[in-house]
Amino acid sequence: MKYSNSLDRLYAEGAFIWGDYAATAEKESGKPVMRLQIGQPDFLPHPLVRQSIAQAYEEGKTGYGPPLGQDVLRTEVAKEIQSYYKKAKITKDNVAITSGGGKMAIGIICRSLMNPGDKVLVPCYDYPGHFGGISDAGGVWFPYKLLPEQQYDIDCLDLEKQIKKTCAKFVFLLSPSNPTGGVASYESLEKLAFLANKYQFTVITDEIYRGHVFDGDFISILDFPGMDTRTVVIDGPGKRNCVPGIRIGYIIGPSTFIDGPVRKLNNVRFSCPPTPEQLGLAKSINHPEVRSYISEMKNEFKKRCDFVVKTLNAIPKIDCPKSGGAFYVFPNIIKTGLTGEEFAHRLLKEKNVCVLPGASFGGGMIDRESKKPYGTYNIRISIASSINVLKEAVGRIKDFVKGLS
Amino acid sequence: MKYSNSLDRLYAEGAFIWGDYAATAEKESGKPVMRLQIGQPDFLPHPLVRQSIAQAYEEGKTGYGPPLGQDVLRTEVAKEIQSYYKKAKITKDNVAITSGGGKMAIGIICRSLMNPGDKVLVPCYDYPGHFGGISDAGGVWFPYKLLPEQQYDIDCLDLEKQIKKTCAKFVFLLSPSNPTGGVASYESLEKLAFLANKYQFTVITDEIYRGHVFDGDFISILDFPGMDTRTVVIDGPGKRNCVPGIRIGYIIGPSTFIDGPVRKLNNVRFSCPPTPEQLGLAKSINHPEVRSYISEMKNEFKKRCDFVVKTLNAIPKIDCPKSGGAFYVFPNIIKTGLTGEEFAHRLLKEKNVCVLPGASFGGGMIDRESKKPYGTYNIRISIASSINVLKEAVGRIKDFVKGLS
Repeated sequence: MKYSNSLDRLYAEGAFIWGDYAATAEKESGKPVMRLQIGQPDFLPHPLVRQSIAQAYEEGKTGYGPPLGQDVLRTEVAKEIQSYYKKAKITKDNVAITSGGGKMAIGIICRSLMNPGDKVLVPCYDYPGHFGGISDAGGVWFPYKLLPEQQYDIDCLDLEKQIKKTCAKFVFLLSPSNPTGGVASYESLEKLAFLANKYQFTVITDEIYRGHVFDGDFISILDFPGMDTRTVVIDGPGKRNCVPGIRIGYIIGPSTFIDGPVRKLNNVRFSCPPTPEQLGLAKSINHPEVRSYISEMKNEFKKRCDFVVKTLNAIPKIDCPKSGGAFYVFPNIIKTGLTGEEFAHRLLKEKNVCVLPGASFGGGMIDRESKKPYGTYNIRISIASSINVLKEAVGRIKDFVKGLS
Repeated sequence: MKYSNSLDRLYAEGAFIWGDYAATAEKESGKPVMRLQIGQPDFLPHPLVRQSIAQAYEEGKTGYGPPLGQDVLRTEVAKEIQSYYKKAKITKDNVAITSGGGKMAIGIICRSLMNPGDKVLVPCYDYPGHFGGISDAGGVWFPYKLLPEQQYDIDCLDLEKQIKKTCAKFVFLLSPSNPTGGVASYESLEKLAFLANKYQFTVITDEIYRGHVFDGDFISILDFPGMDTRTVVIDGPGKRNCVPGIRIGYIIGPSTFIDGPVRKLNNVRFSCPPTPEQLGLAKSINHPEVRSYISEMKNEFKKRCDFVVKTLNAIPKIDCPKSGGAFYVFPNIIKTGLTGEEFAHRLLKEKNVCVLPGASFGGGMIDRESKKPYGTYNIRISIASSINVLKEAVGRIKDFVKGLS
């Protein structure tokens, strides 16, 4: 049986392999591995979310629905995310629900908009699912830089340079960011909006971590002038409502985009999103208890991030920018003499702590200055574990680095 | 915002539009519409299925899992479907679970195997989701004929002729069939297997209705010599376990295919299938009560099909081949002087009964003899409603046809 020629060019996320590595290390060592490689909140979904979906199952509400999702959930999602925007107006007609989580939303957006060979700018560093969706649609990505010295804010000079150089039709944005924990500043977003209008490109913005900004409010590119017609948003309840494994995603965009290409692609790729999950989410996501639960979780993540950043920076040879949101930190470990890949493998083997090598987030692109793949000297640590686990893990990282010298 | 150039060539299923038409007709007439356009069992999922999934939600088992699915479900699926095969040996390594139902399975199979421009033979008439998956992967489809006079069995002479003519690399098979209710005979499958080995093509067989063969056992192409290495199977619990709206699918194939391209595509398109659904299905699908529930349902569908076929054939100007499985009948209505499109629209407007025009299942292909699109003079009726609803609906169809003359 022969496979499609293009499979080699298809970019798949590496994080799942590290889950296998962790399982192997656990088996070999006979001791539990601390899994800091995965971006999965350790909070259970709020009981109202769990019970609402369970109830839809009990009642057998398991039939087909409309390709763009149940009106009742589209309406509730519009209401929920409207509270995050200052100016953008969102109604149910701007919202599509997907099967398959935010990743499906990425794939459908890329397939809807891109032609093979289309150029796409992505932040470096970026969530690998973006590379997956772009490569599945035949697009080609180029990096724009972030500024580690400014908590991974966008390097707007580099961004404009790359736009001029590549004439890219699409720019990805991810704020708060996976893997860096960086949050794009108001000034950067203003500049990005200015450039989008000037150079007529579409912004594909991943707002999956919109509920996890540590200081101040979440700011969306959608709130800047002229962006309502040139922005498409990736979102979903996975991270905010602590249900990453139920695989529901949201796409927000102009109503003509939702009712045209997205309706068609949803139909072709999965007919309709799952019904009981939608009915359960519709009943629960705007409940005041659920909304305040998200706030509490965010505060907890902030404490953990601050603790981990402070403790990591106290380790010689590790430099860790502050994290402004999401649940990751992305330290530079070049002074240890190891690459992120070597660091992660040895840390797993020697200390039973699993983190991800930074190059997983570089899309295979080569940094023009260092001539190495982006992220070669970084690791990503997820702080979605309890503070006690994190204390122990950072302690082991300290011991590990100490042992290197 | 510009969209991808290839969206026009993307084929989307029309059945969802008729759901909208039905809703409009209901509003305009102020009376309920009998919805016979959708292939959705009117049986609720067995309580054990519903409760098992609900329990996983209650317990908050909502985290990520492996891209190919939970081992516990892969094992149970292998066990369940093994009972349908006479010779083929299926283990968990031959099974992948998908988000997004059987439709996602189709898309992933097509994307894994096909290059743009690849030729694919499809039965005419066929489930539109196949055209969707093929078009999304850039493949091009050509028809092989079925034999209405032999209950829509495969026309093997035409099949071989089309294989020689097109040199197609892939042949789709759907038995029991949507839309025809036809079941491929042992002799036809034997011939197909012979041709597959002779001309070295891959068979993509949709076995979603494997639990709904009315007379005798289900026969799979996978049971014929040499087919284990050149067959990929589309399956899922939607129809058998009456959970079409939870959007889970199964892909069965050689272990190298599952662990290679399918693992990669699952990762790229949806990361992992939904966890609570998988855990719940794993606990319930092989329970003896659930298995016998499927049998009872099949018997009920058989009764309904026989009744509908007999009653339709008693209407002058309607010719309806017997249905051997699934839950559809596909009568020819050419003698009414109407096309299927006209018939379906008028029947909805005048009698509040919704069926689908046959051309929805022809993939836009033109019949070489009639020079019309395949299915122009057919309608599809789903018998997934209660016998009382079907009695009333067929009575209205009778009145409608009577009123034409």
